[in-house]
Amino acid sequence: MDTLTSFLCGQWQAGAAPLTPIHAAATGEVIAQASSRGLDLGAALACARQHGGEALRSLTFAQRGERLGLLAQAVAAHRDELIDLSLRNMGTTRGDGKFDVDGASGTLAYYARLGAEWGDRRWLFDGDQVQFCRSKRFVGQHLWLPRRGVAIHINAFNFPTWNLSEKLACAWLAGVPVLAKPGTASAPVAHRLVSIWHAEGLIPPGALQLLCGGAGDLLDHVGPQDCIVFTGSGATAAQIKGHPAVLRHNVAVNVEADSLNAAVLGPDVAPGSDLWTMFLAEVAREMTQKAGQKCTAIRRIVVPRAVIAEVRAELTARLQDAAVGDPALSSTAVGPLAGPSQQRDVEAGIAALSATAELVWQAKGVPAAGCFAAPTLFQSELGAAAPFVHDHEIFGPCATLLPVDPAPATVAEVVAKGGGSLAASVFSDDAGWAREVILAIAPYTGRIYWGSAKVFDQGIGHGAVMPALVHGGPGKAGGGEELGGERGLRFYWQRVAVQGDTQLLRGLAG
Amino acid sequence: MDTLTSFLCGQWQAGAAPLTPIHAAATGEVIAQASSRGLDLGAALACARQHGGEALRSLTFAQRGERLGLLAQAVAAHRDELIDLSLRNMGTTRGDGKFDVDGASGTLAYYARLGAEWGDRRWLFDGDQVQFCRSKRFVGQHLWLPRRGVAIHINAFNFPTWNLSEKLACAWLAGVPVLAKPGTASAPVAHRLVSIWHAEGLIPPGALQLLCGGAGDLLDHVGPQDCIVFTGSGATAAQIKGHPAVLRHNVAVNVEADSLNAAVLGPDVAPGSDLWTMFLAEVAREMTQKAGQKCTAIRRIVVPRAVIAEVRAELTARLQDAAVGDPALSSTAVGPLAGPSQQRDVEAGIAALSATAELVWQAKGVPAAGCFAAPTLFQSELGAAAPFVHDHEIFGPCATLLPVDPAPATVAEVVAKGGGSLAASVFSDDAGWAREVILAIAPYTGRIYWGSAKVFDQGIGHGAVMPALVHGGPGKAGGGEELGGERGLRFYWQRVAVQGDTQLLRGLAG
Repeated sequence: MDTLTSFLCGQWQAGAAPLTPIHAAATGEVIAQASSRGLDLGAALACARQHGGEALRSLTFAQRGERLGLLAQAVAAHRDELIDLSLRNMGTTRGDGKFDVDGASGTLAYYARLGAEWGDRRWLFDGDQVQFCRSKRFVGQHLWLPRRGVAIHINAFNFPTWNLSEKLACAWLAGVPVLAKPGTASAPVAHRLVSIWHAEGLIPPGALQLLCGGAGDLLDHVGPQDCIVFTGSGATAAQIKGHPAVLRHNVAVNVEADSLNAAVLGPDVAPGSDLWTMFLAEVAREMTQKAGQKCTAIRRIVVPRAVIAEVRAELTARLQDAAVGDPALSSTAVGPLAGPSQQRDVEAGIAALSATAELVWQAKGVPAAGCFAAPTLFQSELGAAAPFVHDHEIFGPCATLLPVDPAPATVAEVVAKGGGSLAASVFSDDAGWAREVILAIAPYTGRIYWGSAKVFDQGIGHGAVMPALVHGGPGKAGGGEELGGERGLRFYWQRVAVQGDTQLLRGLAG
Repeated sequence: MDTLTSFLCGQWQAGAAPLTPIHAAATGEVIAQASSRGLDLGAALACARQHGGEALRSLTFAQRGERLGLLAQAVAAHRDELIDLSLRNMGTTRGDGKFDVDGASGTLAYYARLGAEWGDRRWLFDGDQVQFCRSKRFVGQHLWLPRRGVAIHINAFNFPTWNLSEKLACAWLAGVPVLAKPGTASAPVAHRLVSIWHAEGLIPPGALQLLCGGAGDLLDHVGPQDCIVFTGSGATAAQIKGHPAVLRHNVAVNVEADSLNAAVLGPDVAPGSDLWTMFLAEVAREMTQKAGQKCTAIRRIVVPRAVIAEVRAELTARLQDAAVGDPALSSTAVGPLAGPSQQRDVEAGIAALSATAELVWQAKGVPAAGCFAAPTLFQSELGAAAPFVHDHEIFGPCATLLPVDPAPATVAEVVAKGGGSLAASVFSDDAGWAREVILAIAPYTGRIYWGSAKVFDQGIGHGAVMPALVHGGPGKAGGGEELGGERGLRFYWQRVAVQGDTQLLRGLAG
């Protein structure tokens, strides 16, 4: 059995007992273990600040981009190995594993290109010179410069390769070193990823460290130039943001947390039309891909009451076609959840939702061994007393149909009940209706996917997070924002306004 | 004696006993009292969300700007009255009172013009359409739209007119209603300001509410679309950010807190030169203006060791010329602190700093009655054991000389010891040295004022906050950001990425 070490201060270090077991999700057997006990995390942060930051800041954007390009190539070169490991560890099907690994190399390559575009600069001007008083000579100029601390990345278990890589890409290109803590359930994949990069000599000293196991006393050591990016549950997010050292130093925290993402079917979409099919295919895929373990997955399906029976029947038929079982088989559409604790959470969530919503359909014959959850479809009325359907994210293959009167205001009210989401999708060819819905749900949403007949064959899916567009959402979804091209780098930068003589300020560019 | 009411849900409402006394700072006598006890603050927030938000969002940017212009005109029309009240209440000299009142009308007018520029739109596109997958037709577009909640503005006591107005200007132009809680010591001024606007019919229903007295259970009622902007102490900031409801709903919090701002004299600046004089005048003004009660005031004076004796002598002479006393007299340069609790804090701070730094000079003959503090100059060595000089903001007419070897790295290290500041200034005509210092201290600073011979006669001062440039700072300074033109509005907006057909997305503009 593997004991996962942590990569801190340039050394692979083992934590002390007791160790946390890590499972093969498809069988439930323990395949690895990890512990961060006894590791000097204060020293790790100091090493990042002292060596990692300097190493990255001394590189130009083009050079940082070049590094990211090499990381992307290394991921691509070890693609099959990472997909296989993901299958053995988390029980991801090959398709789900590709989604994670190719997402990682794609995002790294995207930011590598951005770095090349920015060339031999090391920081950016923000906008032009601004006249701010009567003088035309004494003006202001905003700059973006990298923070002098370390970026602590506390990642989710569901996308071990992508989540580590997409956060790293933004931090490195911004010029800030990283200490990454993977979700323990999939730490073997993250550990392998960093081992590959390290073995190929791609990590400047202190620029990337890996902490396997619990976070220990990590947050006690944060300082005013550090920042934290967290993907995970709202409960843990509150602990991080409320940590005394985080509060004392006003450490910037970027959170991506629980999200009850909605898909909305327009009243104009006729059963049997292309757009109707696109909607159903999208919902079914979102429910089953990664066994529903996607922060952007569709959890609430908002459907005009007039067609609820047709949607119910056709969606159920599609779900029935999605075979649950051994992720190694190419015929399998839905693998297990990532581990036993994820399985317990999903089972408890489905039991709780069953108490307030109608159970429409549940897959049968799901393997008893391993960490499987049965794909499940619910239906709920808006007037139902319990807000559970809008409030509690069940992180598995489960969603709820919500029949509504499709007036834009009603639809927006339903979507807003989620308290803030990462993603929503709207399927309609009625531009007026869709515009009204989109603008009304936008304040509650980080990203909106507008499916229409015009893009019927071109969509990349409601759930896919693209590096050129922001990822994050307000309220329950954490209030954070990642990616979106340059937007995703600003969290790692300090914006400063410099006032002075117009010519001297131009000279700041060097 | 005035009992200050609160303006909530369209009514002026009195809180229950016991009431908090408010003082005339120059005499110490109680002139007013306030209480928020028993007021329904949950209802106030609901009223803002329901009526105020809708009222503002229904207006175009131009119409919102027009409102701000009317607010600015009302401030200007009541300028003398507000300055007089500020003098009677907080003991501000006429010059200090103008700084507050004219800053308010100027900032409101600035955002009024920005609204006029943006015309008949109600929200903004963020950047252009983005190609994010192979398709050139299925693209992304980022939008900025107003949050659907209420902006809670918890303001500092030192600038009752400006602080309320500058936050309000950004929130209203963004389309978000405000509940403002002034610092209690200067609540009479804020109360009068809102009374004037209300009497002139300038406040759309629910768009601005005023809470005089303590914050009570206000934060228990926040929701996921609300946001909080706080100016005040780091300790209170931590309480706000760590409040359970704020954490539960990931309420966005923008903080401007303690700041040990530094002024740095370049080694090239010769005693007696114009720039030398500019530096000394600036430091003396920063120490005495508003009796040092400015979040941007210079607290640490970083000076080449070679000229420390000259700086010490000339600065002391300038401070000696600044008469402390009755703020109503035109000969007075330094009035009292804003109230008895401010006085206690400053006295305790000076006593503590005396234990670790050399007392260079302290004003004598300061009035015993009223809330006066004696202007005080310290000097400290870097090696001194206690970091108090870099760590504890004394919010009064007090600063510390720090003699250094003026190598850029040393200077940056000293500035960085402050843990993050709102403002810093650098005085030098050596463009190379200044550039190095500016880029090195920038990550620790929100705004940098570069004094040079070229702008000798044009500067508006280290401490002045201008609406076109950001105001805020990292770490100890709170990690927040206000103003800066459009930048200051983004906190009140949600950014959303919409994916869809390129032509349909263009249609979102309406």
